[in-house]
Amino acid sequence: SEAISNVSRAVSQKSNIAALEGIKVSVAPGKVTLTGYNLDLGITTSIEAETNDSGEFVVSTRLFSEFTRKMGGEDITFEIDDNLIINISSAATECSFSGISAEEYPDLPEVDSKGSFCVKQHLLKSMINMTSYACSTNESKPILTGELFDIEDGKFNLVAIDGFRLAIRCEFAETNDKFHFVVPRKALQELSTLIKDEEDSPCEICTNDRHIIFRLGSVYVISRLLEGPFHNYRLSIPTGFKTEVNVSKKELAASLDRCSLIIDEKNKAPLHCEVGNGVIKITCKTGIGKVNDAITADISGEAVTIGFNNKLMLEALRAAEGDRVRIRFNGAMKVIEILPPEGENFIFLVMPIQLRG
Amino acid sequence: SEAISNVSRAVSQKSNIAALEGIKVSVAPGKVTLTGYNLDLGITTSIEAETNDSGEFVVSTRLFSEFTRKMGGEDITFEIDDNLIINISSAATECSFSGISAEEYPDLPEVDSKGSFCVKQHLLKSMINMTSYACSTNESKPILTGELFDIEDGKFNLVAIDGFRLAIRCEFAETNDKFHFVVPRKALQELSTLIKDEEDSPCEICTNDRHIIFRLGSVYVISRLLEGPFHNYRLSIPTGFKTEVNVSKKELAASLDRCSLIIDEKNKAPLHCEVGNGVIKITCKTGIGKVNDAITADISGEAVTIGFNNKLMLEALRAAEGDRVRIRFNGAMKVIEILPPEGENFIFLVMPIQLRG
Repeated sequence: SEAISNVSRAVSQKSNIAALEGIKVSVAPGKVTLTGYNLDLGITTSIEAETNDSGEFVVSTRLFSEFTRKMGGEDITFEIDDNLIINISSAATECSFSGISAEEYPDLPEVDSKGSFCVKQHLLKSMINMTSYACSTNESKPILTGELFDIEDGKFNLVAIDGFRLAIRCEFAETNDKFHFVVPRKALQELSTLIKDEEDSPCEICTNDRHIIFRLGSVYVISRLLEGPFHNYRLSIPTGFKTEVNVSKKELAASLDRCSLIIDEKNKAPLHCEVGNGVIKITCKTGIGKVNDAITADISGEAVTIGFNNKLMLEALRAAEGDRVRIRFNGAMKVIEILPPEGENFIFLVMPIQLRG
Repeated sequence: SEAISNVSRAVSQKSNIAALEGIKVSVAPGKVTLTGYNLDLGITTSIEAETNDSGEFVVSTRLFSEFTRKMGGEDITFEIDDNLIINISSAATECSFSGISAEEYPDLPEVDSKGSFCVKQHLLKSMINMTSYACSTNESKPILTGELFDIEDGKFNLVAIDGFRLAIRCEFAETNDKFHFVVPRKALQELSTLIKDEEDSPCEICTNDRHIIFRLGSVYVISRLLEGPFHNYRLSIPTGFKTEVNVSKKELAASLDRCSLIIDEKNKAPLHCEVGNGVIKITCKTGIGKVNDAITADISGEAVTIGFNNKLMLEALRAAEGDRVRIRFNGAMKVIEILPPEGENFIFLVMPIQLRG
């Protein structure tokens, strides 16, 4: 018999990945390893357990995680017989249900590493959370549904792009090696939810041509990589600018939010934005109604009138860290840049929309 | 022009009622009244406003509530022109959209009161929250989709019943008059969400044969009543009992929760419950799996073996207040009673299920 502690945490972390397949439970003396895998993405966790047995089997994710979570006692005893009947007991409670043979469970890919590097976990989480909004959801160009890990010359750029916008988060790399690979957004989002906000320990990243492993202590996340050439994003970033604005993120977002109230699938219109004389004037008119707004801002350079999509700009503002942002314009039909007030820790690009008249 | 304060709170409280119809705004010198009404249920709120005008019109609930909520300034100015264009402004922000003529808005029913009484608001909320789970959702017997207000001889019973279970919450009435009417569950639930948890002030209840008004300060909730004879619930309550159990609500609910994991639409089975010798043994077996559980309890009277539906019992336990409950049995095929450890402040009844074999 085995006493399993803390199993429910490990299970709930994986439930949405392993839902269709169940969870593979691998028992070795002193240790239990749980695996969830959906052929694209795998997560494994090892925990200590009082057992001298070994073997493996697959259990229903729902029953395994819910029974374990809803047991009364501290220690949970876990037994499986030759007919794959799984028995979970604790104090006066005893539950049993059928398991599945582990023979039917696919093996995780072997990652024969070509190289590895480390990133602090909370930093990786923040990088993912600030950029993943800009991934494409259009499966017709699969490479853009992931994010580019671009590591070169001691710099680590995480890049997402969908054709209308681009998000880059830039950090120093803790390696001098060169890496260039694209990870599916889904895997990065699962990884991000597994990382605690303040977790300072490193995430070890190991990769070959087809797969990647993220190691968070005793938790491993394994994902396939997306293949094909990624957009040469460096060419999209303007080298200069004609107008620069420093504005309260909250005020600008609130204004875009109000404009969004009169925009829906049937009633679309670009936001009409006039920048100059210390004021950003935003107006929008659709079949539903009209909004006129004005926000004070620090503005330098040429005055500019430009149109843009409310949602693309709002999502970029929401992904930005800090209270204020810098916005750079290069003319009415050129890409809009959103940056932090100082430095280029992140760069978000939004394509403008041509205004009529 | 009018300065409206606090309008968004009033609006959001009503949004799901008035969604289809919009909100009627009635302006009188110094006062604005907002009305949401869906022909079954109406809610009105009055607020103070700086205005000398009077008139009325109907606005889109979504635009009105969202624009008001998302305005930057403290004071919001509200204008309407002869073309029913509504203009909301605050600081540098200005939004406009079309209103609808109030001529198309149906009048709320007049309640020419036949009598009224008061209940403390938090008490009414608690009474509703503890009993409404037992209302029927089956529209084929509409009277059971509401709750009976049964007030007589200084006692106030609030009663819900659906054929498989019954919930009564009993309080002293602050009136010696006799009332007997049935209010739709939907109206009571809206009323409950409008009441703050600790609100000690009275709710005034005014009724005629067809409608009821609940007055919470400046907020009025008006509902039609359900017509027809209500089940004579007093006949359903047993006068004695053969077995009485005093048990931890949390432990019993946790056990029923575990059993529920192996019960679904396809795999139904009653919970098999053996009561005696200081232990409640609960077992359940379905195509999914098996659960055996035992809970210690104070048991007096005859031993009994009885079957019941997991959901009906769980919902009754969740609606019960306090850490422990009394459960009374009258034999294997007789109704099960759930009561507080002391007194009869509430009585929940659950029908048993016949066990095979």
